[in-house]
Amino acid sequence: ARTGTAEAVLCEGKSPDIVAAIVDKALDHGRRLLLTRISEHHLTVLDRPGVDLDRESGTAILGPPSSDTRAGACIVTAGSSDIGIAREASRTLAFHGYAGPVISDVGVAGLWRLMERLDEIRSHRVLIAVAGMEGALFSVLTGLVRAPVIAVPSPVGYGVARDGAAALSSALATCAAGLTVVNTGNGFGAACAAIRMLRMADPE
Amino acid sequence: ARTGTAEAVLCEGKSPDIVAAIVDKALDHGRRLLLTRISEHHLTVLDRPGVDLDRESGTAILGPPSSDTRAGACIVTAGSSDIGIAREASRTLAFHGYAGPVISDVGVAGLWRLMERLDEIRSHRVLIAVAGMEGALFSVLTGLVRAPVIAVPSPVGYGVARDGAAALSSALATCAAGLTVVNTGNGFGAACAAIRMLRMADPE
Amino acid sequence: ARTGTAEAVLCEGKSPDIVAAIVDKALDHGRRLLLTRISEHHLTVLDRPGVDLDRESGTAILGPPSSDTRAGACIVTAGSSDIGIAREASRTLAFHGYAGPVISDVGVAGLWRLMERLDEIRSHRVLIAVAGMEGALFSVLTGLVRAPVIAVPSPVGYGVARDGAAALSSALATCAAGLTVVNTGNGFGAACAAIRMLRMADPE
Amino acid sequence: ARTGTAEAVLCEGKSPDIVAAIVDKALDHGRRLLLTRISEHHLTVLDRPGVDLDRESGTAILGPPSSDTRAGACIVTAGSSDIGIAREASRTLAFHGYAGPVISDVGVAGLWRLMERLDEIRSHRVLIAVAGMEGALFSVLTGLVRAPVIAVPSPVGYGVARDGAAALSSALATCAAGLTVVNTGNGFGAACAAIRMLRMADPE
Amino acid sequence: ARTGTAEAVLCEGKSPDIVAAIVDKALDHGRRLLLTRISEHHLTVLDRPGVDLDRESGTAILGPPSSDTRAGACIVTAGSSDIGIAREASRTLAFHGYAGPVISDVGVAGLWRLMERLDEIRSHRVLIAVAGMEGALFSVLTGLVRAPVIAVPSPVGYGVARDGAAALSSALATCAAGLTVVNTGNGFGAACAAIRMLRMADPE
Amino acid sequence: ARTGTAEAVLCEGKSPDIVAAIVDKALDHGRRLLLTRISEHHLTVLDRPGVDLDRESGTAILGPPSSDTRAGACIVTAGSSDIGIAREASRTLAFHGYAGPVISDVGVAGLWRLMERLDEIRSHRVLIAVAGMEGALFSVLTGLVRAPVIAVPSPVGYGVARDGAAALSSALATCAAGLTVVNTGNGFGAACAAIRMLRMADPE
Amino acid sequence: ARTGTAEAVLCEGKSPDIVAAIVDKALDHGRRLLLTRISEHHLTVLDRPGVDLDRESGTAILGPPSSDTRAGACIVTAGSSDIGIAREASRTLAFHGYAGPVISDVGVAGLWRLMERLDEIRSHRVLIAVAGMEGALFSVLTGLVRAPVIAVPSPVGYGVARDGAAALSSALATCAAGLTVVNTGNGFGAACAAIRMLRMADPE
Amino acid sequence: ARTGTAEAVLCEGKSPDIVAAIVDKALDHGRRLLLTRISEHHLTVLDRPGVDLDRESGTAILGPPSSDTRAGACIVTAGSSDIGIAREASRTLAFHGYAGPVISDVGVAGLWRLMERLDEIRSHRVLIAVAGMEGALFSVLTGLVRAPVIAVPSPVGYGVARDGAAALSSALATCAAGLTVVNTGNGFGAACAAIRMLRMADPE
Ligand SMILES: Nc1ncnc2c1ncn2[C@@H]1O[C@H](COP(=O)(O)O)[C@@H](O)[C@H]1O
Ligand SMILES: Nc1ncnc2c1ncn2[C@@H]1O[C@H](COP(=O)(O)O)[C@@H](O)[C@H]1O
Ligand SMILES: Nc1ncnc2c1ncn2[C@@H]1O[C@H](COP(=O)(O)O)[C@@H](O)[C@H]1O
Ligand SMILES: Nc1ncnc2c1ncn2[C@@H]1O[C@H](COP(=O)(O)O)[C@@H](O)[C@H]1O
Ligand SMILES: [Mg+2]
Ligand SMILES: [Mg+2]
Ligand SMILES: [Mg+2]
Ligand SMILES: [Mg+2]
Ligand SMILES: [Mg+2]
Ligand SMILES: [Mg+2]
Ligand SMILES: [Mg+2]
Ligand SMILES: [Mg+2]
Repeated sequence: ARTGTAEAVLCEGKSPDIVAAIVDKALDHGRRLLLTRISEHHLTVLDRPGVDLDRESGTAILGPPSSDTRAGACIVTAGSSDIGIAREASRTLAFHGYAGPVISDVGVAGLWRLMERLDEIRSHRVLIAVAGMEGALFSVLTGLVRAPVIAVPSPVGYGVARDGAAALSSALATCAAGLTVVNTGNGFGAACAAIRMLRMADPE
Repeated sequence: ARTGTAEAVLCEGKSPDIVAAIVDKALDHGRRLLLTRISEHHLTVLDRPGVDLDRESGTAILGPPSSDTRAGACIVTAGSSDIGIAREASRTLAFHGYAGPVISDVGVAGLWRLMERLDEIRSHRVLIAVAGMEGALFSVLTGLVRAPVIAVPSPVGYGVARDGAAALSSALATCAAGLTVVNTGNGFGAACAAIRMLRMADPE
Repeated sequence: ARTGTAEAVLCEGKSPDIVAAIVDKALDHGRRLLLTRISEHHLTVLDRPGVDLDRESGTAILGPPSSDTRAGACIVTAGSSDIGIAREASRTLAFHGYAGPVISDVGVAGLWRLMERLDEIRSHRVLIAVAGMEGALFSVLTGLVRAPVIAVPSPVGYGVARDGAAALSSALATCAAGLTVVNTGNGFGAACAAIRMLRMADPE
Repeated sequence: ARTGTAEAVLCEGKSPDIVAAIVDKALDHGRRLLLTRISEHHLTVLDRPGVDLDRESGTAILGPPSSDTRAGACIVTAGSSDIGIAREASRTLAFHGYAGPVISDVGVAGLWRLMERLDEIRSHRVLIAVAGMEGALFSVLTGLVRAPVIAVPSPVGYGVARDGAAALSSALATCAAGLTVVNTGNGFGAACAAIRMLRMADPE
Repeated sequence: ARTGTAEAVLCEGKSPDIVAAIVDKALDHGRRLLLTRISEHHLTVLDRPGVDLDRESGTAILGPPSSDTRAGACIVTAGSSDIGIAREASRTLAFHGYAGPVISDVGVAGLWRLMERLDEIRSHRVLIAVAGMEGALFSVLTGLVRAPVIAVPSPVGYGVARDGAAALSSALATCAAGLTVVNTGNGFGAACAAIRMLRMADPE
Repeated sequence: ARTGTAEAVLCEGKSPDIVAAIVDKALDHGRRLLLTRISEHHLTVLDRPGVDLDRESGTAILGPPSSDTRAGACIVTAGSSDIGIAREASRTLAFHGYAGPVISDVGVAGLWRLMERLDEIRSHRVLIAVAGMEGALFSVLTGLVRAPVIAVPSPVGYGVARDGAAALSSALATCAAGLTVVNTGNGFGAACAAIRMLRMADPE
Repeated sequence: ARTGTAEAVLCEGKSPDIVAAIVDKALDHGRRLLLTRISEHHLTVLDRPGVDLDRESGTAILGPPSSDTRAGACIVTAGSSDIGIAREASRTLAFHGYAGPVISDVGVAGLWRLMERLDEIRSHRVLIAVAGMEGALFSVLTGLVRAPVIAVPSPVGYGVARDGAAALSSALATCAAGLTVVNTGNGFGAACAAIRMLRMADPE
Repeated sequence: ARTGTAEAVLCEGKSPDIVAAIVDKALDHGRRLLLTRISEHHLTVLDRPGVDLDRESGTAILGPPSSDTRAGACIVTAGSSDIGIAREASRTLAFHGYAGPVISDVGVAGLWRLMERLDEIRSHRVLIAVAGMEGALFSVLTGLVRAPVIAVPSPVGYGVARDGAAALSSALATCAAGLTVVNTGNGFGAACAAIRMLRMADPE
């Protein structure tokens, strides 16, 4: 709140009992709430009225949708495996009243796919890029646009790419000035950073 | 250029001869140029008229200063060892026509020092934080302000902190949503990202 | 015993059969015993009379409770996910006759929560801090108190924070002099070290 | 010899005395020889008639130049810091009688530079790509051509890119099928692999 | 396509729903398709007519077999645990119309087994070597043949060999010039690289 | 100060000019000051009256010695290479008015040397152990005494022990409950933690 | 065979079908065979007459027991969790006709337990030591005996000790000359090395 | 002594003053002494009568040569860069009265060189193998002989082979049962282990 974005509940590492208690309390007080990194064993305590649950991204939202939707950040993904993280970012934006459109499957192994969508991508004020494997999308995209780009390495890949290790070091080591990075898989954090940028531009 | 910020010359890894050739060509064409990560063995070829050389940050600027100076990003450092990186960021902002004031030595081992400067820090639109060792400043600062914060881990420290390793993982692992990160020591990249954010807010 | 604290049985890595044999023998001899890092597959052999089993912390205690409870160490946690480790420490203290009150959810992303509890925290002679993610709590807390602080990194987090890696290096790299560290997740060891400190102050 | 390429002398890790002895013997026998990874302290024993020494690449060649020069592999570099490694590859090709033209400074932070040279690049049968920092060039280039591409990560970079670590994992983790990789800095090995490919196509 | 080999669908990291959708679309359009890294939970959506599924290699092929089979690459494995990866390479070759015979269980702990098959191995124009544990096969094989060799480290092993870590660094660090490397487990990529080499030799 | 121990100046990473400025200011104000991790290039600015410089430990003390010397912590080292770190701890204790006797060269490769000094070691209330290589001393010592033991891994060793890596993980992974750890080489931090323990026992 | 010890079948990484085929063939030919690293999913194909299966160590032996049992190597373990690996070594010795007595639970956290068994340990010609966590047993034991000692790090432990990482680096970094090391968990390899030593002493 | 081999003085990490003091004392007492890992800055204090100094291996021996020389261990190296480590082993054997002949430059990139020397190698009772880069020699050699083989990874190599990292993991991950390993560069430790084996076979 004091920082302009809500604290979310990070469900990973919490027992279903603890998550259930947090949800009960929020519903009782009619408080809006965002939950992230929900996994299989949390589902039973979250599958109930008043909880807008999205399995693909492992997120849940309590309380009414945000009343208005301002222009927000565009989320660009390298492959269709990155969609869960993209939706974590998109729903975090929505929770705070911002649009979060997703353009997916434009990784650089097929550069023309990125080029075809470039005008659309350039029309947004802040970009969030999600990529796993070698994460070459981060550098290429940042070199093609003027907006700030936030890289979210995704844990897609095997061998040296396992858990997003290669994509993370790619994002940090980039030659393309203007790219900043959040932790592997942290779509929530990328969205919150994007919101800080948008608020700076349009103070309420 | 196409991205709104200039490409700089990364001198680390280039022989003095190559750097000299680049500088000659730029001076001949009267082109403005920013050079970063200059080290001892480059100094002789850079100590000449027309080159504004700053040893502390390992940067050099060719060409006339930027004509106007818009409000830019404030750079906050944990310790006095971080000043070289802070100046790399500050001079990159100056090169592009933005102010880059530095507030130093406000690491969290003495939390009151940070608190005393908090109002001043909060008056800026974008923040760049530089810290080595365990990098606790990144999370604490981000939790106290509304502006976007860009973390630059600094290679200050020994043992597990050597080469900034602890500070980097601290910055990425932060619980404080709204923080983004660049590579250890990359004051240049942090400044370029800040400029993208400022331009997004005030398109020319 | 010769060191002033009991050796505990580390159940992780032992088959249920081996654990059952150890428990049988202790019950037969009427020996007090502490078991740690109990997991799912050990539960059936431990769910029996005479065994005080705590699933949240994965600990079990055999034998009568300690006769008296001296003032001990206060355990401070960053988030509610750290509670299992906090209880491992707390129950180890109890087993040896010391109090181990827990103050939880005072991580630095919301610094005011820590500040509100500071007087209470300062009233204890030894502190144990438990934190995952980037572990910024360790440095901030140590900079605010005069007591010795023992850091227990917790394996909460993903990406670079997986398995507590970021919290561990944060704790070791701290600028805040007076902090010492135990292995990730080692609430038992932190409690034993605290007991050594308390005994040194109040030799029996 | 039995493998179609010569064994070279890896000077790194050998004392100047040992290198001198090897050179003496080769000159005495009139044997052609390639030496790689020559550093400062080897120079005095190599600066003599009959030794074609190239400081930039740290290579030396003994004996007459190769009699003919067949079409070989084209070496593409991301930045001007990669030139030493590019020349190690190029001179290894020359030693075996193949051309090794270098196209430099076409890194993807400025994608148009790569695009401008693409026709020229596509005219070669085997490509060797040299890049440091995040090594995004490897994936982008491989996605744009039909020839086999061999990646040589270069030890250019700092922070997570130090010693070529980020470029190496990028090359291995690539989504662009058809790329193979050699050790960081191994221009010699890349050239030998290229020669095996060319010989397979045109058996002598 | 533009690169001479097909893009495959990497199933790892994709939900069964997404994979099913991709397969439906390809079958509808009568498009040939290669799927790789299929795991248990994908099997139900792939066990259907028109899909040639191979569990051992985790690959599936849609569409008619390739019309002709040209001489391709020979795949050599160290042990019988490497067979899954060998078949991923072999089926990728087949998908593109090339033969991919497998010679298995010739690891260097029993050097004579390799020697017995050496003439057969030498009769192929391109070699793919698959090995886990310490991966000594890569260097020994490359030193015995004239063909280009592509190393595929396999994730077979425990301790320091877990996930193929030792085999990967062995392959990259080789003294045997002429070896190139792909990511651990990437039989698909090795085959695509082999195809580029074969096409370079025999342009269609 | 607020924490009961002084903040020291960490000289590593600071230019001689910055260190000189800090010293000037302290001497002008007659302030006592501790400087740590002084290296060669700082020596010229520190070799002056009023500065008690110790090269072996890389520490300097400004101002009058502490008026009284209370019983403090005993520092135990494995080998004679650990003496610099032992003295950093010892001088930090002295600066704060505590004794810091050193018992050296009692590593466990010769267990009888440790056993001969055991009574003396047991007479101290807090122990600091310094060891490099495999750091087996930490576990053995902690298993033999009742006092709290603080491990300082030392950067002595080569191969897997380089930079103290093996000793650090040994200290953290110990089976001997009651051991806590500080960063490799951090004699200063170990002493400050010891002082917190001693003050807790004897509040002034 | 040519090396004096049998090649064993490493079951980890092989499908049950492959293991079954190997076993069938050996039984058909009446060949003696040792299988190691058997896990849960292999059990059904191994639970049959003629197979001496030991679940605790994950080993199986086909064929008649060795006819005689010569004095062999003594296996010393730090804790009761190391028993599986100790038995892998013991059964490998037995398979080759050597005794392999196990002395367990003599880790150095309770040094007197090791001292009580020292005479017995000293009576053996070759020692194999198994330890997890920080592996301090390796150095202490080697410093107390004259026999060659082979360290087998065990994957017992959590945090920095996970997968035996701390024990492995401890064993390699030892100050106690005369210790050699095999891969984490490799009881089989340790036994084979011990047999080579015993055979060297008593050539058949 | 109690272990059958002498403790040596590890000079790395010790100041010249400390080394000089140790040498003075030994010369005064007429004690035989072995010093290892001597570097440039120790040379002045060791270049004196009564000290048998060998720069190539960084070792020095004080006192009379060993009176007799028994058959010892044969040291086999992959390349001529490994000679310093080979001599450290050889001189350690000599110091204890054992022969230590060296067979060098038989790495597996040229397998025939190893084969040519195989009979000679097989005539020795214990083997020490020294190799850097990918260390394939360890596995190949162990698979060809019956003697115990001790691997000494050597810090020769660059990229992933830097500091012997690839050779070390290769040695540990070997498929060739009967190989044991010491720390990278530890020729001294390998020789001491060999001596334990030889003494076991021929007790004095
Ligand atoms: N997916 C996420 N990644 C990173 N931080 C998060 C995420 N979700 C929530 N958080 C933050 O992590 C902290 C969660 O703390 P808690 O839920 O109290 O353990 C809060 O500061 C949240 O804002
Ligand atoms: N097994 C594999 N390893 C590496 N890359 C692959 C593999 N299978 C497919 N790919 C490539 O990885 C990308 C997968 O993209 P997508 O399926 O869209 O997420 C495509 O460029 C594929 O050609
Ligand atoms: N050797 C040391 N190791 C760890 N921290 C130190 C050391 N010396 C000083 N410090 C602390 O590190 C910080 C140094 O900050 P500064 O000198 O302002 O860069 C202060 O909080 C010191 O107390
Ligand atoms: N090159 C070496 N590598 C490993 N250990 C060594 C080496 N040289 C000596 N040592 C041992 O390391 C210890 C050195 O102790 P000190 O010289 O007292 O620091 C003694 O136990 C020596 O036997
Ligand atoms: Mg795609
Ligand atoms: Mg400071
Ligand atoms: Mg919380
Ligand atoms: Mg460039
Ligand atoms: Mg095999
Ligand atoms: Mg010693
Ligand atoms: Mg035990
Ligand atoms: Mg050689």
